Amino acid sequence: MAFRLTILGTSSALPTSDRYPTAHVLNVHERLFLIDCGEGTQMQMRRYRIRFGRINNIFISHLHGDHFFGVYPLLSTYNLMGRKTPLHLYAPAPAEELIAKHLADFDIHLGFDLTVHTVSGRSMKKVLDDKRVEVFSFPLKHRIPTYGYLFREKMADRNMIKEKIEEYGLSVEEIGNARRGGDIIRETGQVIPCAEITHEPHRPASYAFCSDTGWFKKLSSYVSGVDLLYHEATFGADNDALAVTTRHSTASHAAKVALEAGAGKLLLGHFSARYRSTAPLEEEARQIFPCSEAAREGVTYEIG
Amino acid sequence: MAFRLTILGTSSALPTSDRYPTAHVLNVHERLFLIDCGEGTQMQMRRYRIRFGRINNIFISHLHGDHFFGVYPLLSTYNLMGRKTPLHLYAPAPAEELIAKHLADFDIHLGFDLTVHTVSGRSMKKVLDDKRVEVFSFPLKHRIPTYGYLFREKMADRNMIKEKIEEYGLSVEEIGNARRGGDIIRETGQVIPCAEITHEPHRPASYAFCSDTGWFKKLSSYVSGVDLLYHEATFGADNDALAVTTRHSTASHAAKVALEAGAGKLLLGHFSARYRSTAPLEEEARQIFPCSEAAREGVTYEIG
Repeated sequence: MAFRLTILGTSSALPTSDRYPTAHVLNVHERLFLIDCGEGTQMQMRRYRIRFGRINNIFISHLHGDHFFGVYPLLSTYNLMGRKTPLHLYAPAPAEELIAKHLADFDIHLGFDLTVHTVSGRSMKKVLDDKRVEVFSFPLKHRIPTYGYLFREKMADRNMIKEKIEEYGLSVEEIGNARRGGDIIRETGQVIPCAEITHEPHRPASYAFCSDTGWFKKLSSYVSGVDLLYHEATFGADNDALAVTTRHSTASHAAKVALEAGAGKLLLGHFSARYRSTAPLEEEARQIFPCSEAAREGVTYEIG
Repeated sequence: MAFRLTILGTSSALPTSDRYPTAHVLNVHERLFLIDCGEGTQMQMRRYRIRFGRINNIFISHLHGDHFFGVYPLLSTYNLMGRKTPLHLYAPAPAEELIAKHLADFDIHLGFDLTVHTVSGRSMKKVLDDKRVEVFSFPLKHRIPTYGYLFREKMADRNMIKEKIEEYGLSVEEIGNARRGGDIIRETGQVIPCAEITHEPHRPASYAFCSDTGWFKKLSSYVSGVDLLYHEATFGADNDALAVTTRHSTASHAAKVALEAGAGKLLLGHFSARYRSTAPLEEEARQIFPCSEAAREGVTYEIG
């Protein structure tokens, strides 16, 4: 089952000729989650063949333009495409107010329900819980209210061992019970242990998105044990002071979070335009956390 | 001297994988004028090497997103680039109010002066007059207040015939006078006709931008005799009724305007996503006005 991330933008606030502003698409079992939506996100979605109709949830980290300017045109496009399916957008305040004002100003009447969920608080919170995935928000430390998001695949049902179905003459009800992890106890008193007739399901995968933020100790606890950690690395250690002033991170900061969190892999992004090549940032992170990589646009990363 | 147009976007409201929304850049003697600014305009400017610093005037036809959504991020980018030069933006109301609200909402403090000039009225009006060019606005017929723009190069000074300077021993003052078209009358009574010592300057070039609009009779008079007419052709004649309902034009409508205006050349654009190839629209226009062409992104058209 799919659990993979496609990167649509790797620039910080100032785009370059080959870097778009932040936008990620997480595919969880063919349901797509759009995370941040800078200018040109819909163009990148077309370029990398992201299916518009598969997105029902958009997560916005904060209301700086390079993470948000693509929302207005994307809503307009969904409307022109005749979208009817409800759309959910998660973002800090005042996103709901901004979007409402914008739709009024541009006289846009959406033909679908848009629900804006206000993300807030100083601790980790579950913001979405469906059949396949749970999504949590957690506070970051930036110049304005900013949130990271953690996506955790839910434990799947156990897999039946086919031969056992016939061997024990299992009923549909018994199979369902065993797949959900229950032992089978028959009226005759016969006990068939779940472990004997099913295999373990695959380990649930997880992805955490951290942009934009300065370094802070608690961040690693929010993303503890995550399979893939995306963490902004606007700067390299050569601009450590600037990172502190602007409440951004260096590649070293990002790697430190990955290390302390025990992440499986670190993906860097949100690169300042001053770095024409991201190789030095990647190298800097690897000194601290070897499994680090600079995100590349259009590339899909398998998770878990 | 340059008088040329670069096309950055040819889509209508719904962009496609190879068409960006409307944005044109007119180069008049190396001063650049940006006309409309849909989402991703700054990315297209980078792709086609448009020099950001050469733009001091932006003209917006109307406040539909596909002509305006690129303004916010472009202002943000100019700010991040440390722009100090004043910027002028011409647009119908309430552009000034929208931009002011937006800057306040996103807590953006521009480091340069932005003057928003409100374009209005039911007739042709001069909105800019500088050393090299005059720009006029004129009303179009769309669903909201919409304006076209006419750019007219000013008549240049006449060119001196070098040998004549020596032959008559012309002073700097006499040369200046002759270049501006005056005959020279000396204290001795000697008259040196301007036409004898100077050549005609090149004919001033002109460009008209008409998007978005339904067909109306008066439009051709606004753009009478223009060298290059850009006119939207959202649809082909196969969607004539839809063009009327949505207050857009077909390729035939555009060609009719070009023909009645006696334009030098017609450039079509603002193509509906339903036309994967623009060749049929080009062909349709040529039946009425042979010198018609479907605009292509990244292409620069020499004018005059």
